[in-house]
Amino acid sequence: MIKLNENYLKLQDSYLFSTIAKKVSEFQEKNPNKRVIKLGIGDVTLPIAPTIIENIKKSADEMSKKETFKGYGPEQGYDFLREKIVQFDYKTRKIEIEKDEIFVSDGAKCDTANIQELFSVDNIVAITDPVYPVYLDTNVMAGRSGNFNKETGKFDKIVYMKVCAENDFKPEIPKEKVDLIYLCFPNNPTGTVLNKIELKKWVDYAKENKAIILFDSAYEGFIVEDNVPHSIYEIEGAKEVAIEFRSFSKTAGFTGLRCAYTVVPKELKIDGISLNKLWNRRQTTKFNGVSYIIQKAAEAVYTEEGQKQIKQNIEYYRENARIIREGLISAGYTVYGGVNAPYIWLKVPNNMKSWEFFDELLSKANVVGTPGSGFGPSGEGYFRLTAFGNREDTIEAIQRIKKLK
Amino acid sequence: MIKLNENYLKLQDSYLFSTIAKKVSEFQEKNPNKRVIKLGIGDVTLPIAPTIIENIKKSADEMSKKETFKGYGPEQGYDFLREKIVQFDYKTRKIEIEKDEIFVSDGAKCDTANIQELFSVDNIVAITDPVYPVYLDTNVMAGRSGNFNKETGKFDKIVYMKVCAENDFKPEIPKEKVDLIYLCFPNNPTGTVLNKIELKKWVDYAKENKAIILFDSAYEGFIVEDNVPHSIYEIEGAKEVAIEFRSFSKTAGFTGLRCAYTVVPKELKIDGISLNKLWNRRQTTKFNGVSYIIQKAAEAVYTEEGQKQIKQNIEYYRENARIIREGLISAGYTVYGGVNAPYIWLKVPNNMKSWEFFDELLSKANVVGTPGSGFGPSGEGYFRLTAFGNREDTIEAIQRIKKLK
Repeated sequence: MIKLNENYLKLQDSYLFSTIAKKVSEFQEKNPNKRVIKLGIGDVTLPIAPTIIENIKKSADEMSKKETFKGYGPEQGYDFLREKIVQFDYKTRKIEIEKDEIFVSDGAKCDTANIQELFSVDNIVAITDPVYPVYLDTNVMAGRSGNFNKETGKFDKIVYMKVCAENDFKPEIPKEKVDLIYLCFPNNPTGTVLNKIELKKWVDYAKENKAIILFDSAYEGFIVEDNVPHSIYEIEGAKEVAIEFRSFSKTAGFTGLRCAYTVVPKELKIDGISLNKLWNRRQTTKFNGVSYIIQKAAEAVYTEEGQKQIKQNIEYYRENARIIREGLISAGYTVYGGVNAPYIWLKVPNNMKSWEFFDELLSKANVVGTPGSGFGPSGEGYFRLTAFGNREDTIEAIQRIKKLK
Repeated sequence: MIKLNENYLKLQDSYLFSTIAKKVSEFQEKNPNKRVIKLGIGDVTLPIAPTIIENIKKSADEMSKKETFKGYGPEQGYDFLREKIVQFDYKTRKIEIEKDEIFVSDGAKCDTANIQELFSVDNIVAITDPVYPVYLDTNVMAGRSGNFNKETGKFDKIVYMKVCAENDFKPEIPKEKVDLIYLCFPNNPTGTVLNKIELKKWVDYAKENKAIILFDSAYEGFIVEDNVPHSIYEIEGAKEVAIEFRSFSKTAGFTGLRCAYTVVPKELKIDGISLNKLWNRRQTTKFNGVSYIIQKAAEAVYTEEGQKQIKQNIEYYRENARIIREGLISAGYTVYGGVNAPYIWLKVPNNMKSWEFFDELLSKANVVGTPGSGFGPSGEGYFRLTAFGNREDTIEAIQRIKKLK
């Protein structure tokens, strides 16, 4: 008789974005004349850069002719793209990564979700709190979480590393031994970063304790400050302990095109067994590579024109972030993130709960954001706004919020 | 201290296609004047149909404008595509599938690989022998296989259902109880099919024994005979026991574009828990949807023009299959498959081993095929040729093989 993977039953349903959508549509129904501005969801809004579109069309033409048609590609990605990644994302920062350490995929979400398969279910997992929910949920599904404790809002066996104003959003090294450490910097949802010295502590910890760091740098493109590492491999020795996840989603607007990559260095071994080889085995068995057309689109990101065009878009979002950040500060809010990241994390005023603030912001300013508590128990009392809206809406949203005070 | 998923270490490295590539390149080096014809790999060669290319370009244009740009799409696929699938792939065959039972993905390989996550590691898995290796390997990785037995070439806990000339390539209902049954028809690698009565036996078994059938119908587009089911849901009651996998790869040449879908009916429940909901949870947590552009490409498959164009391509491959099949028969070979499938499965003559025949075919006829033993121990003594080559090569390959005899 067939049995379920019972770990799935331990998953806590997240109603975060569906609850937001429901509240917004109810509000709109009752207030048809109010224009609601949405700064809630972490999705880009600017169109794909012209050079990238051109490459998509060119590669579509290739697919239309027998001589240039491409069937199955390498599961790990085409060399033309892997070589560009090595050259532009790493060599320019004096990091030596070989092209067969790069695994092109259809999303950092998939990769950060799938990577845990390589490890024993007995390993202890550490995540920040608040956190991007994928890291947690995929470990629940795999059976590493233990049971959910309704009182604490936490799973028994997961080590939660609180990040909050009191510790300047720098996770502290856990007292208990941990094996798999998820770090996302620039951080989603808080928009905060670690500098090189702070990140080095984690690399050192991982080395000493034979732990592995899963480093999600999907928001790397937004970094402006010099001492903030774009890659964990800027830290000496990180290749022996860290896997890095990158994405074209937020840097080049690929959320709807789907392309990302993961770096698994050959130095990374457990008991002499290469994780690069294991991940290669995983990908060749369970994945069939990214669409040729989308890989050609990603390749165009690295051309001179492509770089210019995507940087304009990032600049646009960054200016939105500045407007939100400075506007909120001048309105008396306490604000975090938003400098090296597209997310602004604000302290909810007057000891309100995150959801109370959500309701107030929606009803009084007609602005939608994301309650911090949706990202974990320590997100309570915080609120996320994103810089991905358009300029006019962003300016107006902040003006409305200012009037609230 | 971090520990590996030790199940990965049980995986048997498949050197099948890399060994083939090596042997071919060695042969070419020694015989630079011989033209080798490759009928080994199951990948399409005809270009993408014009209507599909047009839709790719149109959707690229949409992505280039702010007003029509698409960011994250639904993880389950866009409604425009799910509705077409419901209408054209199911309603036309009088099968009622709802659009939220369709999950669009980037490949049937991924879906058939990932689906086992929903089930307990204690379940007993049944696969045919020979088999598409993904079904086996993903269950090894998950810990359902037990250990590998070098003598038998089989894993302890996996139930192998032999398919061979003696049972007309119809797997027999296993004597032991099994929980998860992988069936692929039209079959890869043998090219054989089950008719409706034969498939019904499996549906009945699954119902009686509370087992689940994972039905891979990636080659459905090649079916010509009336009594061969295109979908397992043509069998009464199958919605309560079966998940179906479909792909645009072989029907519309999407191996390099990447689009497929999986059907999880709402009737399918274990202990009252809906597998549709679980798969939805899996996909929303670990997957971020297929590229908008690729989904628009898949949508074009269902237009009148699209249908005409892809059917021309299938017809071309089918004619290749006929040429191979009839050519081999007239040369005295015993041949299976190739009628409702792009694969021709032949009995290796003179009690040769599969790899011996490979070497002979390569050296004497300069034709490359795939040794049956590469697909499982019961594939020994068989050999696979595919219909995906071009016409001239296919004709010449058969002429050369005929001269061998």
